[in-house]
Amino acid sequence: MSGSVSPLAPTTFATLPPVRGLRMATASAGIKYKNRTDVLMMVFDAPAAVAGVFTKSKCPSAPVDFCRNNLPHGTARAVVVNSGNANAFTGVKGRQATELTAKSAASAVGCSENEVYLASTGVIGEPLDATKFAGVLDQMQSDATGDFWFEAAKAIMTTDTYPKVATRSAEIDGVSVTINGIAKGAGMIAPDMATMLSFVVTDADIAPVALQALLSDGVGPTFNSMTVDSDTSTSDTLMLFATGATAADGQKRVETASDPRLASFRTALNALLKDLALQVVRDGEGATKMLEITVTGAESDAAAKTIALSIANSPLVKTAAAGEDANWGRIVMAVGKAGEMADRDKLAIWFGDVRVAVNGERDAGYSEDAATAVMKRQDIPVKVELGLGEGQATVWTCDLTKEYVAINGDYRS
Amino acid sequence: MSGSVSPLAPTTFATLPPVRGLRMATASAGIKYKNRTDVLMMVFDAPAAVAGVFTKSKCPSAPVDFCRNNLPHGTARAVVVNSGNANAFTGVKGRQATELTAKSAASAVGCSENEVYLASTGVIGEPLDATKFAGVLDQMQSDATGDFWFEAAKAIMTTDTYPKVATRSAEIDGVSVTINGIAKGAGMIAPDMATMLSFVVTDADIAPVALQALLSDGVGPTFNSMTVDSDTSTSDTLMLFATGATAADGQKRVETASDPRLASFRTALNALLKDLALQVVRDGEGATKMLEITVTGAESDAAAKTIALSIANSPLVKTAAAGEDANWGRIVMAVGKAGEMADRDKLAIWFGDVRVAVNGERDAGYSEDAATAVMKRQDIPVKVELGLGEGQATVWTCDLTKEYVAINGDYRS
Repeated sequence: MSGSVSPLAPTTFATLPPVRGLRMATASAGIKYKNRTDVLMMVFDAPAAVAGVFTKSKCPSAPVDFCRNNLPHGTARAVVVNSGNANAFTGVKGRQATELTAKSAASAVGCSENEVYLASTGVIGEPLDATKFAGVLDQMQSDATGDFWFEAAKAIMTTDTYPKVATRSAEIDGVSVTINGIAKGAGMIAPDMATMLSFVVTDADIAPVALQALLSDGVGPTFNSMTVDSDTSTSDTLMLFATGATAADGQKRVETASDPRLASFRTALNALLKDLALQVVRDGEGATKMLEITVTGAESDAAAKTIALSIANSPLVKTAAAGEDANWGRIVMAVGKAGEMADRDKLAIWFGDVRVAVNGERDAGYSEDAATAVMKRQDIPVKVELGLGEGQATVWTCDLTKEYVAINGDYRS
Repeated sequence: MSGSVSPLAPTTFATLPPVRGLRMATASAGIKYKNRTDVLMMVFDAPAAVAGVFTKSKCPSAPVDFCRNNLPHGTARAVVVNSGNANAFTGVKGRQATELTAKSAASAVGCSENEVYLASTGVIGEPLDATKFAGVLDQMQSDATGDFWFEAAKAIMTTDTYPKVATRSAEIDGVSVTINGIAKGAGMIAPDMATMLSFVVTDADIAPVALQALLSDGVGPTFNSMTVDSDTSTSDTLMLFATGATAADGQKRVETASDPRLASFRTALNALLKDLALQVVRDGEGATKMLEITVTGAESDAAAKTIALSIANSPLVKTAAAGEDANWGRIVMAVGKAGEMADRDKLAIWFGDVRVAVNGERDAGYSEDAATAVMKRQDIPVKVELGLGEGQATVWTCDLTKEYVAINGDYRS
């Protein structure tokens, strides 16, 4: 792993205000790493509404199973996140580790074990020694403080080259509410080093069922529209908590996602999710370019997304981007292999504002120089118009470089 | 492109006998390359039965459309293959180029244009100047000779590092028949440099409908079970011709694929298709390892194949292979993301004979040294047992190396 920061990293980081009702602390439990923090604890002093979306993997980690089981309960008092060990593919021992961790956290905070949420990233298949948490969680709960977002983002990093933070504000009932979020994932959505985790917290007062609907809707065009290498983790976890602290300012609890008072909140939440998702792509392992791929004119939005992901996951498209090669033939290939309806002779393709192909052949005014100039940018917009219908989608990916192969070809040894 | 031969190349090449009824020639038409042969012509002196399978791309090349249209006619007299230009995404000009080429070939051979088959590989989106064929096909038809297989295999190479040839013999009605085949495709199944083409010819007397059934059945566990980078070409073409010359030896024409007289032929054909397919994988761009991935115990054979391909196409599995890293967690990941039924707690995984995981956790007797020893081989067998049913499949792939990124990151410039 190279020690250098991604060339696509943000030049400044947002400053995140505390969110009333939430305190956080980090600690070094010695799970795997020496001399670095490897545990984050989030403590809600009153039960917070909770929502979550998780990996679609058929082989999920033990913490993912644990969170899914607790979610119907609807409220959270503590979250424990560790790095260094994913507690994935660990069988009965994995379940025992989640139970022991939850018990320790519940005891530290004074809550039920079904108000505890867990997330682990790191090596998979290695039993997680949860007894290491027992000693630290009590101390963390008493140390926890509200002004801790940036430290929290750093504590959950693995191969990330920069911490990922975002904040937005919105209004509900004329009351100002805050939404903060952190994420980790060095772009790779993968099992044993760079699993994607994200935790978002608001002080708004929103019921769990409404919160879940907001999150499930919001994840589609954001976290579920980014890809680095098409590999899906066993541990991907995105959780949204609402402390309800703004009830004290007069905000009346929102019970359903269809409540029109959520308009501003929904916009702010979706913007924050997109912000975090793009930060993950921009930290893609070995990445030197970000590609924004927009497909329009598909038979449906779902078809557009399938085609956009086919382009975004194509090794040939991604290596061409790494080489700054305006190789639009590979876009044609990726559209063709996607399996969705496409009509070669209606297809048009743009790199940035440069139309390179139209009506099933190279644009008559095609300029290799103009197309190459777009490929030399850090952020490369690619647009494909299918000419069939109204379906559209946008996805984000990064290029595929020798550095990606180096990082992933030998990381365990 | 490096000039070196794949480390996985065969040490010897099969010697292919002539197939009665077929003559071949190559020529330099100056399509793109200077000072090298870039056209192959196959001439059948009497109409040969023909079968074909083609890319599933929704954006197929003009020659693929042309061949598909001719196939119902059932017989072939000429095949023209060019490298340097794929005649793909070339609109009306592309169709005109196929028509002109077919007309020239039909005139040279003295047959109908619907007895001509075409294949093109090379840059896509560039109009193909088919007038360049006009001058050479007459000469090729008169020069064509039966003992030309190795030259033919070399003439259709692009980024291939070695020519791909295979031969088998079989018996029908006690009469010995020959099957010869050639293929190209530097492992990458992609649009503009290494499209997969393969041409197989037998002297057996088999009707087109039977020939098509044999080919369609044979391609599933062979050519359609290999992958280098998951990218599907606009031009992939596999054709099978039967000259019927062995009728002169007393072989009675086979009319249907269910004819029991085909047993020996079917076995030989399938072995030849697998031989050629594995040669393509072993020439995968940048490849240093071949992986044979077998999935057993799936709900169905189709589910097993989906899971096997999910493993074979995973950049993380392929980079781990490049690094000789026995990273079985990435196999778990790839099983989990495939979308087919899997039960984490029934899963077992082997590298070679070394069982690394069983019952949803690391094997109690796991030895990193033993697993790593398997990864150091050139050919790495990976086996996954799902424990759900009887479905199984085997697929082949190669590793993902920095050399792959180098070859594909900048080939056009």
